[in-house]
Amino acid sequence: MCIMTEFFNVTSVQEALNLILQKLIPNNQTELVKTIDSLGRITQNKTYSLEDLPIFTRSSMDGYSVIAKDTYGASESIPAYLDIVSEIPMGNTQPTSITSGQASQVYTGGMIAKKSDAVILLEHTQIVSKNTIEVLRPVAPNENLIHIGEDVQKDDLILNSKHQIRPQDIGGLLSVGINKIEVKKLPRVSVISTGDELIPATNRPKQGQTRDINTHTINSLIKLAGGNPIQHELIKDDFDSQLNISSKMLESTDILIFSAGSSVSSRDLTAKVINKLGKPGVIIHGIALKPGKPTIVGLVNDKPIFGLPGNPVSAITVFNLLVKPVIEVLSGNKKPKKPKILKAKLTQNIPSVSGREDYVQVKLFYKNSNLYAKPIFGKSNLVHTMVNADGNVRIELDQDGLYSDNIVNVETYDY
Amino acid sequence: MCIMTEFFNVTSVQEALNLILQKLIPNNQTELVKTIDSLGRITQNKTYSLEDLPIFTRSSMDGYSVIAKDTYGASESIPAYLDIVSEIPMGNTQPTSITSGQASQVYTGGMIAKKSDAVILLEHTQIVSKNTIEVLRPVAPNENLIHIGEDVQKDDLILNSKHQIRPQDIGGLLSVGINKIEVKKLPRVSVISTGDELIPATNRPKQGQTRDINTHTINSLIKLAGGNPIQHELIKDDFDSQLNISSKMLESTDILIFSAGSSVSSRDLTAKVINKLGKPGVIIHGIALKPGKPTIVGLVNDKPIFGLPGNPVSAITVFNLLVKPVIEVLSGNKKPKKPKILKAKLTQNIPSVSGREDYVQVKLFYKNSNLYAKPIFGKSNLVHTMVNADGNVRIELDQDGLYSDNIVNVETYDY
Repeated sequence: MCIMTEFFNVTSVQEALNLILQKLIPNNQTELVKTIDSLGRITQNKTYSLEDLPIFTRSSMDGYSVIAKDTYGASESIPAYLDIVSEIPMGNTQPTSITSGQASQVYTGGMIAKKSDAVILLEHTQIVSKNTIEVLRPVAPNENLIHIGEDVQKDDLILNSKHQIRPQDIGGLLSVGINKIEVKKLPRVSVISTGDELIPATNRPKQGQTRDINTHTINSLIKLAGGNPIQHELIKDDFDSQLNISSKMLESTDILIFSAGSSVSSRDLTAKVINKLGKPGVIIHGIALKPGKPTIVGLVNDKPIFGLPGNPVSAITVFNLLVKPVIEVLSGNKKPKKPKILKAKLTQNIPSVSGREDYVQVKLFYKNSNLYAKPIFGKSNLVHTMVNADGNVRIELDQDGLYSDNIVNVETYDY
Repeated sequence: MCIMTEFFNVTSVQEALNLILQKLIPNNQTELVKTIDSLGRITQNKTYSLEDLPIFTRSSMDGYSVIAKDTYGASESIPAYLDIVSEIPMGNTQPTSITSGQASQVYTGGMIAKKSDAVILLEHTQIVSKNTIEVLRPVAPNENLIHIGEDVQKDDLILNSKHQIRPQDIGGLLSVGINKIEVKKLPRVSVISTGDELIPATNRPKQGQTRDINTHTINSLIKLAGGNPIQHELIKDDFDSQLNISSKMLESTDILIFSAGSSVSSRDLTAKVINKLGKPGVIIHGIALKPGKPTIVGLVNDKPIFGLPGNPVSAITVFNLLVKPVIEVLSGNKKPKKPKILKAKLTQNIPSVSGREDYVQVKLFYKNSNLYAKPIFGKSNLVHTMVNADGNVRIELDQDGLYSDNIVNVETYDY
């Protein structure tokens, strides 16, 4: 048993990420979704308007549609008099006409009378008898109107390609008759948990058995990153089973994640399986990172494969550093959410070793209105270290530790 | 027709928000969800561990489980010799015993031999024959072990009340047998769109008709704010229909939103309906805000009711200022997502009027590596103003405008 494999060619986090991203093939798979269900999705193509908006000349105010010329010279002292010949209620599809000296009552967003060319505001008129108004100010032609296509014209660009759809965009698409839209498929991510000791998370373990919780933590991380967790399997530490199942899963997924068992032999098995799955197989074995050193990255049929460490803290740390950016690139999202960074004062020294990145879990608290970060030390194989943490502090590759009272950047776990 | 109602008692945005929040009754409705489906939900109660974790003493490394005393004094020059009597594979539930002078091969996360009290790392040993190892260093009792309950103990606090569930929390809950968890129900929000001119958004309008797009924009905003958009109805401008339907909807919702027609009479109708629904009815009618002045806020049976303006830009602006915070408070989320703020240089003057808050849509662009914000003027009843915008700039209540080259805070629309 070659137990030292993982310590060869240890790669820095940044080198590893660059190498993976450089080999990624862009995701050009799309699907047509209903516009009303498209919130947050990424458009594939530029989208152009199918129609003019509005399709009819609208009043932009409550008032009277008039022929502007009839109001010229009107003032409070010398008002113009107009006959109200009709009302054009909202939703009316067959407006009446007016001629010189006439007016129709109209409403914001509604049609105006045929032959009219302006709207005089209600508050610039005065009712003098049942069918007559005084106009107290002149209006110019086109005043208080929204013209056909003034909002947007047929064939105008509505949304760019690679644009993440926002609430207003859903309204904008629907407003011009676009009821379906082609969006990038969410990257499909499958998870294989391996380990003879593992049982499904909702089962009750016997002595010596461990619940497979990482699958569910990873599935949640996949969702937050914008991926689609399509399948997960729990497999014993058996080369043939792992190869058969992972080979099938790889066909229907864009990213494959092995959540390796915690023992060195289990991780070696993962590497062997990835190498057998296809070329080039394992491209990174070991990262200059704590926790997360025994990470494996592979590439088969242009699909990224990750072997995450079995320790929960390591698995989450490596996911956020390497898997999340890959999902974000494949999802086509140009503006992925970044974690909130808070500045806090360290409560104690954190030792580290130059030549590796360290991520230390911290608990945040306020004292005398200062924000403090208290490191949560503890083995990275403890599940609840990260449950108790509010975020983490990074110690750079070339730093050999951080000191008590240092002001540090805490990357928070507010998702 | 009293068309001026809306201009009385105009309230500032902050006063309006304070008034609403002060009258909000906390949401104590909960539901039991599967832990694996609980991502992002808010816990109702404190959650305590059901079990010790781990339930058995684990090795934290690959190596040999030994009796520590047997290794005392061992060194590279004078190693201790031990007999390998067994291997305890991962998942083994019935480990063998050892006696003094014996060792069992064990793996990270697996059980150790009965009677052993420490694990010596593989790399601190050397195989000398099939069944014998040299131990090159001493280990102390308990070294390289994770004890029963070391991660978390039965009845320990796992998650606080009012805590938003993160990926690691899902793992943490499952790890101690908590497969379901009581979480706050998402606030239910119902939307009534009113207006004789409106037709369902996916229908084709005739001249004089308008697609009801606001319902779908608002539903998307509800989801982003953490609410559950449960129902939406499109109703004509008819008092009795609006009263009957809204009265039924109010029974099964926590927040009711009227997306009022654009005409003054339509908005007056909304106010009348809200007043008839129950006490106190309308509590705010008109906000010192542009766009968004003709906003109505009501309260019936302790449930907030909003009358949003029909103009799309106004509706979204008012939703973000008043409805979103209400949904967030009712959802129990203590750390709601804040929009990203970017500093940008204004490309031109923006006039305003002291005594009202203005929100001006802007387009962002880079020039010579400086970020610029170009105001998108245009009537607030244009749908595509906001589709074209990257964010907005606020002009405070006491400001009478902003000037070209001012550095302003842009609240971005990256959701």
